[in-house]
Amino acid sequence: MAKGMPAVGWAARDTSGVLSPYSFSRRSSSSIHSVPVPIMPLCFLRQSDEFPYVMHDSRALKDDDVTIKVLFCGLCHTDLHIAKNEWGNALYPVVPGHEIVGVVTDVGPGVKNFKAGDTVGVGYFIDSCRSCVSCGSGHENHCPTLVLTSNAVDYDGATTQGGFSDVLVVDQGYVVRVPEGLPLDGAAPLLCAGVTVYSPMMEFGLNAPGKHLGVVGLGGLGHMAVKFGKAFGMTVTVISSSPRKREEAVERLGADAFLVSQDSEQMKAAAGTMDGIIDTVSAGHPIVPLLELLKPRGQLVVVGAPSTPLELPAYAIIGGGKRVAGNLVGSVASCQAMLDFAGKHGITADVEVVKMDYVNTAVERLERNDVRYRFVIDVAGSQLGAAA
Amino acid sequence: MAKGMPAVGWAARDTSGVLSPYSFSRRSSSSIHSVPVPIMPLCFLRQSDEFPYVMHDSRALKDDDVTIKVLFCGLCHTDLHIAKNEWGNALYPVVPGHEIVGVVTDVGPGVKNFKAGDTVGVGYFIDSCRSCVSCGSGHENHCPTLVLTSNAVDYDGATTQGGFSDVLVVDQGYVVRVPEGLPLDGAAPLLCAGVTVYSPMMEFGLNAPGKHLGVVGLGGLGHMAVKFGKAFGMTVTVISSSPRKREEAVERLGADAFLVSQDSEQMKAAAGTMDGIIDTVSAGHPIVPLLELLKPRGQLVVVGAPSTPLELPAYAIIGGGKRVAGNLVGSVASCQAMLDFAGKHGITADVEVVKMDYVNTAVERLERNDVRYRFVIDVAGSQLGAAA
Repeated sequence: MAKGMPAVGWAARDTSGVLSPYSFSRRSSSSIHSVPVPIMPLCFLRQSDEFPYVMHDSRALKDDDVTIKVLFCGLCHTDLHIAKNEWGNALYPVVPGHEIVGVVTDVGPGVKNFKAGDTVGVGYFIDSCRSCVSCGSGHENHCPTLVLTSNAVDYDGATTQGGFSDVLVVDQGYVVRVPEGLPLDGAAPLLCAGVTVYSPMMEFGLNAPGKHLGVVGLGGLGHMAVKFGKAFGMTVTVISSSPRKREEAVERLGADAFLVSQDSEQMKAAAGTMDGIIDTVSAGHPIVPLLELLKPRGQLVVVGAPSTPLELPAYAIIGGGKRVAGNLVGSVASCQAMLDFAGKHGITADVEVVKMDYVNTAVERLERNDVRYRFVIDVAGSQLGAAA
Repeated sequence: MAKGMPAVGWAARDTSGVLSPYSFSRRSSSSIHSVPVPIMPLCFLRQSDEFPYVMHDSRALKDDDVTIKVLFCGLCHTDLHIAKNEWGNALYPVVPGHEIVGVVTDVGPGVKNFKAGDTVGVGYFIDSCRSCVSCGSGHENHCPTLVLTSNAVDYDGATTQGGFSDVLVVDQGYVVRVPEGLPLDGAAPLLCAGVTVYSPMMEFGLNAPGKHLGVVGLGGLGHMAVKFGKAFGMTVTVISSSPRKREEAVERLGADAFLVSQDSEQMKAAAGTMDGIIDTVSAGHPIVPLLELLKPRGQLVVVGAPSTPLELPAYAIIGGGKRVAGNLVGSVASCQAMLDFAGKHGITADVEVVKMDYVNTAVERLERNDVRYRFVIDVAGSQLGAAA
């Protein structure tokens, strides 16, 4: 019985979160040939006999599988949380990475939309149940049995391993096309950071010229929100606790204005002016001052995940009919629309490209927010090393 | 100079909140005749002269004013909070009441839609700026200078006095028509309790057969949400901390199901089943168990106002893209639509009608939720008493 396609990546093995080389396997076309021979000629089977293919290798390539050589993969805060088991759900060894850009090397016979040589992306998830209300309505990112790209259990029982590896095998329904012309390193973070802010901006109408968008926090997600907001023709104000971020918000990213969240005079002067706010901050912080920035019926979108609950006084949302919503990435269709929009407007993430042997340093620097704004691993250009 | 139209009502005069007879004045057509004569013939005026009508009586009836004889007025929790100055903003003497049904007795020359004899309603507010974004988009209930029906300062500087009085004068733009056939006592609470739940149900699509609505708390607002939900053809589940409310929820109000919020087994079994929840509870309570009842992308609407902040962990809304919104009553148009819908479906509040001299007892009983579900004062049928 085949063991699947050999793959090599970098994995965390314990709560230190330190990544090192790791050999494992993906689903493989070669394993199709190793399906066990039927135990008897089919015509001799009685109904009561067990189906003779029970030994079929779950590691066999499926008709809809796309095999992808990984080129670049972004490093997201989630990778860090999982690698160190900070959420208590690590399935070690963990190969992180869900902001993946690569090139198709092989496709199964059922694949119609992709062919070898295509430049593609894979984001936060690689499968969903395809039968629930969310899947049926094009919001599969909210499927209750969503299969995440890394550190999850796939429907075949295998633990999923992410893009910090040389090769990936993904069902065509969960692969997106990267538009021509986008630099591939800067495109990688679009697959998670990009769609995480783009999707709710589209959902809540925060995509129209003349509207005013607030962006809280200027990291991997926040800087993408600023770029999309400006590309939509919006007025964009960055809100940050760090006055020193003013220059990069306005000069580097083109934000129209900057507010220091602790400056109550500044905040008061901007009260009631914003149509929506994308809050990317993952540390505990007060949201009432943000809600006060919103116009009546304005929308606060929470995409950062502080570990302590947000405090939401009812009065802060009742008077103005204000709204708070959470968001987790976006659907595959939304991700494709985001990439197409990014291609049209030349939007990529601001990245620092590093080789895989720098990843542990990158993790340390990410922990202290020492990156403008996303580390991207040059996976194909790295020596992934010997199997451990 | 005229003093306006004499009115008599019941007012609270201090933090005891005890109501007693109170004489005051409304805008009056009789006062039109008392506008001061210009200080000199207009043709002699120079541009630098002050406009000669500065002495114009602000108590004069306006062209768009509708004079209303109050018939019934509901007693809302807000009245109680204001009368006792629990929100620190009481403008004593306070004549409460903003769930008003009455009959038109007079109209100004600019009034086109109402005539003497019409049965009308007035709700939580009686004017707005008419020029802000909210007013311009038909959401005047979110106008930042909304003039509340009671305990507010009107644009003319007068303190507004509510429906616990014999007569009311309101601009025609803030008056709604009560459909024929609706019992007027039961219709009164529709003007606040009714529209407060109806308006967000319409806004968030919680008005379609086949959808599942949760209603938290079974009081003045909650019981209206159940009635509207059933009239929309929805499946309605009442969620309450009191198991003893099961019978009234299911038998009396026709709810399809009942959940005891502390029963984790019941709550778990219903997880992920609701399209939206109307949360009417005004005491502090956990909302995570409610968010867990929602389907992905489901909507929690907060219409109760606990004095302590709600705790909102980001994880509770991110994974399923869930939404929380506040709501304050509804627009005039929404209120009219709600009344028309109520008229069509025969929906009124379940009320206990009392005379004005019972109001202080009613307040006490309301404080301990001892009413099914709304006290309504039979204002026209009461002896409002001598001026104090």
